[in-house]
Amino acid sequence: MTHKKSSNITPNLENTVYDHKWGFVDTKMVIQKDRSVQVTGERYPISGTEMPDLIPFVEEMLDIKIDVHEIKPECVEKPAPEPIINHEFCKALEQAFPKSQYSTDKRERLIHSHGQSTADELYKVLYSRLERLVDMVFYCETEQDAITLITLAQEHDVCLVPYGGGTSVSGALKLPANEKRMIVSVDMRRLNKIEWIDKGNFRACVQAGITGMELESLLAKEGFTSGHEPDSIELSTLGGWIATNASGMKRNRYGNIEEIVENVTMITPQGILQEVDTMPRVSMGMQPQRLLFGSEGNLGLITKAVIKIHKQPEVTKYGSIVFPDFKTGCDFLYNLAQIGVLPASIRLMDNIQFRFGAALKPRPTLMASMLNKLQKFFLKNIKGLDLHKISVATIVLEGTAEEVKYQQKQVMKLVKKYGGISGGEGNGKRGYMLTYAIAYLRDFLSDYYVIGETYETTVPWSNILDVCHAVSEKALEKHREYNLPGKPYVSARVTQLYHTGVCIYFTHGLYTKGIEHPDEILSQIEYSLRQTIMAAGGSISHHHGVGKLRKDFMPQTISPASIELLKKIKQANDPQNIFGIQNNVFTE
Amino acid sequence: MTHKKSSNITPNLENTVYDHKWGFVDTKMVIQKDRSVQVTGERYPISGTEMPDLIPFVEEMLDIKIDVHEIKPECVEKPAPEPIINHEFCKALEQAFPKSQYSTDKRERLIHSHGQSTADELYKVLYSRLERLVDMVFYCETEQDAITLITLAQEHDVCLVPYGGGTSVSGALKLPANEKRMIVSVDMRRLNKIEWIDKGNFRACVQAGITGMELESLLAKEGFTSGHEPDSIELSTLGGWIATNASGMKRNRYGNIEEIVENVTMITPQGILQEVDTMPRVSMGMQPQRLLFGSEGNLGLITKAVIKIHKQPEVTKYGSIVFPDFKTGCDFLYNLAQIGVLPASIRLMDNIQFRFGAALKPRPTLMASMLNKLQKFFLKNIKGLDLHKISVATIVLEGTAEEVKYQQKQVMKLVKKYGGISGGEGNGKRGYMLTYAIAYLRDFLSDYYVIGETYETTVPWSNILDVCHAVSEKALEKHREYNLPGKPYVSARVTQLYHTGVCIYFTHGLYTKGIEHPDEILSQIEYSLRQTIMAAGGSISHHHGVGKLRKDFMPQTISPASIELLKKIKQANDPQNIFGIQNNVFTE
Repeated sequence: MTHKKSSNITPNLENTVYDHKWGFVDTKMVIQKDRSVQVTGERYPISGTEMPDLIPFVEEMLDIKIDVHEIKPECVEKPAPEPIINHEFCKALEQAFPKSQYSTDKRERLIHSHGQSTADELYKVLYSRLERLVDMVFYCETEQDAITLITLAQEHDVCLVPYGGGTSVSGALKLPANEKRMIVSVDMRRLNKIEWIDKGNFRACVQAGITGMELESLLAKEGFTSGHEPDSIELSTLGGWIATNASGMKRNRYGNIEEIVENVTMITPQGILQEVDTMPRVSMGMQPQRLLFGSEGNLGLITKAVIKIHKQPEVTKYGSIVFPDFKTGCDFLYNLAQIGVLPASIRLMDNIQFRFGAALKPRPTLMASMLNKLQKFFLKNIKGLDLHKISVATIVLEGTAEEVKYQQKQVMKLVKKYGGISGGEGNGKRGYMLTYAIAYLRDFLSDYYVIGETYETTVPWSNILDVCHAVSEKALEKHREYNLPGKPYVSARVTQLYHTGVCIYFTHGLYTKGIEHPDEILSQIEYSLRQTIMAAGGSISHHHGVGKLRKDFMPQTISPASIELLKKIKQANDPQNIFGIQNNVFTE
Repeated sequence: MTHKKSSNITPNLENTVYDHKWGFVDTKMVIQKDRSVQVTGERYPISGTEMPDLIPFVEEMLDIKIDVHEIKPECVEKPAPEPIINHEFCKALEQAFPKSQYSTDKRERLIHSHGQSTADELYKVLYSRLERLVDMVFYCETEQDAITLITLAQEHDVCLVPYGGGTSVSGALKLPANEKRMIVSVDMRRLNKIEWIDKGNFRACVQAGITGMELESLLAKEGFTSGHEPDSIELSTLGGWIATNASGMKRNRYGNIEEIVENVTMITPQGILQEVDTMPRVSMGMQPQRLLFGSEGNLGLITKAVIKIHKQPEVTKYGSIVFPDFKTGCDFLYNLAQIGVLPASIRLMDNIQFRFGAALKPRPTLMASMLNKLQKFFLKNIKGLDLHKISVATIVLEGTAEEVKYQQKQVMKLVKKYGGISGGEGNGKRGYMLTYAIAYLRDFLSDYYVIGETYETTVPWSNILDVCHAVSEKALEKHREYNLPGKPYVSARVTQLYHTGVCIYFTHGLYTKGIEHPDEILSQIEYSLRQTIMAAGGSISHHHGVGKLRKDFMPQTISPASIELLKKIKQANDPQNIFGIQNNVFTE
């Protein structure tokens, strides 16, 4: 890792993001002498604060003791096989593009050879080795680049892998070990402009390599927002959202990605897939466009999309609500989905997730400490709530002042009915904002032998508690089976509401000091937990996709003829398998 | 037409619907001696009333004089070619199914050989001849029937055409003249049960042959609704809605068909396309399910679907609003779509459409007549509105009492801002309900040589007035070009709101007495109007689909590679072209 950064990706991201870990280099969690944890930098509300309760919380939850002086050593010199070079292709490439558009630099190859799934990708790149790397990175700058590159790849039989923010957690960026052809990662992030904004019709044509952060910043200057807020918004790209079939935190108000996007342009080996005109809604027969959502790199390069945009809301109001327990919170959500008033975002944390959030609180001032104690006293003794049972919802309301006022009134009326009480606006905003900062926690804890993963799923309303219970039980059972130290950490939160069910988001953690091949164990447990989730009535994934991690669960998801049809579609549109990333049912 | 009705379709519909015309036999418009028009029967609010202003309105609009004594003669004995019989197939069919499940009866064949498009289908069956008829009708009763039938069709190379309510207005049921194989119409309407209702998760599994009326009646008994209300709800089927990619009047609240349906089961020559479990929302990679919407009979037989259901709304409130003109009404809609309060249904009529509605008013009582005059006086002299310019919106609000109250307040605040005034609840309800009854008008007027068609399209907000203007102008130009008597009738209404645009619904009428081949002229003008719509920025169709009428416009709708992909999908899933109805891009 001694290479100088080459001039790559977009100016906004260059030198600011980690090579392999999550996020921005200005932000890191570091342990202080007193075992409190500090977040460096100034990027997030939590930045600069010291959190005295985090390590004790982790220790309590995992029933282990962390030795803060022993840090699991990362591979300094990452192993990388020599690239497979298709010389004829390279010659043609040199003639077609300037040197600034491609690289065989080892560091660049490594960065583009994995996503962010823990066991199969991140753990391997940090502590052991990736089996297969891309052989070259190409930086796509125009739609014509995409067309030319695909043509060259077809002529010379080269495998292309689209690359956006690199935030995949489904193994979709994991390279197939059996791919003998030269693999070129196609970094789309230089395609990061808004091509046009049509304010009158509330839409914008946006290049697919733009990150969520760039998009929102450009739209905000014009007074607009896309409303799409995945947890990965700082790094993930528009093209990646489409390829993954992503969902954002405010989908209740703005929709999921397939509802936000009105037209996708994908360059494929058989030509350009797109609609000629962009329309709000058309009955045009079967719509090939609809297949592009969830295409997971298997079909082509997404170069741009026309998306809906919305005026920045007049009012954004945060709130939090405390319920006696998780079940009551779920009952509240069930009824909330019926009254025609759905907050832009509402997320319900189970008790463990709530306590985790509390453990991230900064060292309080004397006054804050007193208030905190008062609040706890109030919850426990006045309201009779058990702090080891309560469940907390964070809420974001958006809209006109009147709309937000009306929604708040309706929500609070229902809150009262379910014995909930307001936890205050501050806690709501904090909970919502924490999402971005806690993404750094995984990489911080892995230094101390704590590894983990998140799993998300869709469930019909009636299966929420069953699925949560089954996951906790199975995690415990597997923990014992593998003789792992301490206990597993499993927490759940409900993050999305639908008319017929919800999305549940689990966090799972393990202490692995002294354990051989912890990545493999985590991988096996993860597999087993997905089996458990699906057996209890959950789906293969709500918004992360299938990639390679969950490909074995496709026969439980769609019928055999549906799988066959997908294979035929792939075969028809990419007969040479240029887009040979082998995600989902396309494993060879 | 002397055949006795054979025992076919569903008991609920048998002997109650017209063979070829629209609707139920108990309902008909008839001219009285004083030239007023009476609606027979008791089915609709308008039934039994006499409308003195209708004929004068038609005459004024078309600038012609109707001779009520001369009725255009319908073919009594419809010509029908001898059926093409594939004897091996018939032998196999006889062994597999009882006689009650198939028929080669001429009347049944005729009924199943057309949809409801005027020029290409209805006019021909009433006044001349259909070029090609189905050779047999099969009545599908179970999912296994569908599987067996498709297998037999494959073995014996027979063409199958799915048939639901027969309400297609895109030529999708028009049979390809070049099809030399035996064609079997597959009537799905005996598959009309709700298989289960899951009240807790708000969904129901419903067989695809159920009509909207049957579905809503069964759901209402349990306190639920699907919320899907296409104008054809009395006759069209769930399977037909999916195949057409339909939209309903209350889509603002309940969504379009692709948002209402969570899982489709389609039997195809390559097996069953469906999801294993029904989920609110899943990121599962490319979803073959999404292709089934708009499949237009080209892919297979839709046998059932899992749909979302909703509790019957606590309150349904109707309203109407009068705006000074159509443009102001459109401006109001544009802003309404931005305030987070969208009525379950809102439809804006242009002035001609409004006057048409007024012409359908029953002969008033003395009191009503006085009130009517008072109302007009108020609009004209107090409010300064020009009755030949005003535009009227009908509104339906649904939800909890509080929700409806809040919505009403917000809507009326905006109404005031745009100089609109309330036209009363009665007019709103009447306007909404009239939809079903006026469907009979086309067949009534064609007796008197007035023929017409409706065209619908999607447009971005900024193109509404351009498209409306262009259609009026082109209709006039074409009218002159063909030397037709009088003037064309063209009215428009906005029926659906989206974030980025609307659906516009045009009604077009012509007087054709003394004109040779009026069906061909109407067909050519229709084609020209679609060209005009698309050139002015409208779509190929908002909710009627492409079928055969609009197939030439597909290259203006999706890219060449998208069309190629569709053809390959069809080829992959139906290599023998069993589903050979040749809609959309699948014309041979």
